[in-house]
Amino acid sequence: MSDRIYNFSAGPSMLPLSVLEAAASEMTNFAGSGMSVMEMSHRSKVYLSIFEEVKESLKKALSVPDTHEILFMQGGATFQFSAVPLNLMGEDGSADYAITGNFASVAMNEAKKYGAVNIAASSEDKNHTYIPAQSEIKTSNGASYFYYCANNTIYGTEWKYIPSVSAPLVCDMSSSILSKPVDVPKFGVIFAGVQKNMAPAGMAVVIIDKALAGQELKYTPRLMSYKVAIEKDSMDNTPPCYTIYMLGLVLKWLETQGGVAGMEKLKTAKAKLLYDYLDESALFSACVPGADARSDMNVTFRAATEELDKAFVKDAAAHGFENLAGHRSVGGMRASIYNAMPEAGVAALVKFMNDFELKNK
Amino acid sequence: MSDRIYNFSAGPSMLPLSVLEAAASEMTNFAGSGMSVMEMSHRSKVYLSIFEEVKESLKKALSVPDTHEILFMQGGATFQFSAVPLNLMGEDGSADYAITGNFASVAMNEAKKYGAVNIAASSEDKNHTYIPAQSEIKTSNGASYFYYCANNTIYGTEWKYIPSVSAPLVCDMSSSILSKPVDVPKFGVIFAGVQKNMAPAGMAVVIIDKALAGQELKYTPRLMSYKVAIEKDSMDNTPPCYTIYMLGLVLKWLETQGGVAGMEKLKTAKAKLLYDYLDESALFSACVPGADARSDMNVTFRAATEELDKAFVKDAAAHGFENLAGHRSVGGMRASIYNAMPEAGVAALVKFMNDFELKNK
Repeated sequence: MSDRIYNFSAGPSMLPLSVLEAAASEMTNFAGSGMSVMEMSHRSKVYLSIFEEVKESLKKALSVPDTHEILFMQGGATFQFSAVPLNLMGEDGSADYAITGNFASVAMNEAKKYGAVNIAASSEDKNHTYIPAQSEIKTSNGASYFYYCANNTIYGTEWKYIPSVSAPLVCDMSSSILSKPVDVPKFGVIFAGVQKNMAPAGMAVVIIDKALAGQELKYTPRLMSYKVAIEKDSMDNTPPCYTIYMLGLVLKWLETQGGVAGMEKLKTAKAKLLYDYLDESALFSACVPGADARSDMNVTFRAATEELDKAFVKDAAAHGFENLAGHRSVGGMRASIYNAMPEAGVAALVKFMNDFELKNK
Repeated sequence: MSDRIYNFSAGPSMLPLSVLEAAASEMTNFAGSGMSVMEMSHRSKVYLSIFEEVKESLKKALSVPDTHEILFMQGGATFQFSAVPLNLMGEDGSADYAITGNFASVAMNEAKKYGAVNIAASSEDKNHTYIPAQSEIKTSNGASYFYYCANNTIYGTEWKYIPSVSAPLVCDMSSSILSKPVDVPKFGVIFAGVQKNMAPAGMAVVIIDKALAGQELKYTPRLMSYKVAIEKDSMDNTPPCYTIYMLGLVLKWLETQGGVAGMEKLKTAKAKLLYDYLDESALFSACVPGADARSDMNVTFRAATEELDKAFVKDAAAHGFENLAGHRSVGGMRASIYNAMPEAGVAALVKFMNDFELKNK
């Protein structure tokens, strides 16, 4: 592994080395089929057996009940920003949105094309550095759904509770899925772009309460219909077959790590290492003050000055810690420590930060 | 290569072995970056240099003029079935469709959600075994565009001419792109799912006359807007980074084979081998009678009886010729011989067919 760097990218992001090695070893001939998985007809027996196994593994990993269906859809989370209102808003409908970051905001603006939107909660007043409490959520009457983003990648915040509302819950879990157990039955729709904790970019996993399908607006593009996707088992058109296979390899690796319970332990330990150091540091500080809102996936922080931010990011890259610059809209730094980032990577980063602090006293 | 089979799948389909080997060798560490391409931030310098190189190679391979933009969009061709009318139909607009197979028909049905549709030509009367002549095309007044599918994968037909019409030409080239030179300036929009001649499934390449962008209907999903895709250089959201990289490897291989001119020579030779045999065989016959309509990419044929069709497909698979069954809607056989199928593969198939014929006299 000496030729590999620690990649703190917010997404696409690190994959387990063993997963990449398995993919490479099977690239020209998968399990004696004489073909790469990339070359297989999606209707072939050999591919369908991969597909079914991946679905089954994901169902097991997240304890998805039979009331819910797992869909693999192209287009990432952005595709879902449109698909959610197109499928759930209804004619002349409305929806509630909690705005705790950029992606929730983009999703809400997309929903405005298809119905009325109510901002049920927002953290914009403090530049999204906190998560609104349950008591601050103001839902509207007749909302077709309540939408929120579980983990805000840019700002480094995370909802530590599931909002209690009467409308079906729709949640963007792109940057936290598979990092801990999820109470799936509480949700109408969970979706997640796969490029953070699941697979290479190019797909979203959707977990939908089947009772919610079938209400799409009449101009919904065929590929965006949850009903069609459910009926065709995600194969109305050719799915991103190789991405699904890669997700399968990641799920196999996840199982060897104790599943989502194992991941929860690991992420808690990794985040604690980093936040504890940040809270003690005289040079660096966490951007999110409240422990009740700090993301365990994306740790945002700053040095004492913007110049030191830049010097740190540059110096870190030179030492094999890549992609630590914060999102261009907020600056500072961000260490994305998804499932595939080993604890040793975080420990090495903390040591490097400490050394940097000593040099820049 | 002895452990590899000849894969005649209609898509996803064969990729050049050298491309797969290159992908495998770079899987855990791309060009000293310490990362897989799968793990790279799409905004990183290292990834953007891959992205720009792929776009440049494709522009060069197809001689795309500066009036046109190349887009990488998720969702395959089916996504484009919706995107085309959403972007080009206009309010209360209409469009002309040539129906020469299943996918043109699916595309037309999707367009009906967004405007009026006129069937300008159809081969349905003879079960899509021919291509209508220019003189048979009846365009309508005021059509926003004229739509056709260049190669009909299921039926094994191919347009050998570019229709001459006054509306902007929109063409689905999913199963023939990169198999020969294309007169790109004649087209308003060319699109192609990549899973046949370009890359693993999960993306479409769109080549659009920039003058046509910006007329989308107001409820067009953000990810389906050609205007947004052009403005954001296909990165409004995270693109399918690895699929784009694989396309780059295929384009490098294509260049070593003489580019699209080399591919045209090769495909003509391969198709001739197969059609010549079919025309002489007493057991097998081509499904498409006219040489002016026969696809060089998907060769459809039948044995004397359905029982022999089945026996042939089974026997062929046992001898390393995979995926020769025809589409489930038409039966018979289909040999898809895209760019990556070597001439030796077609020669071996013809020899096997000949042996089968001798055994079943």
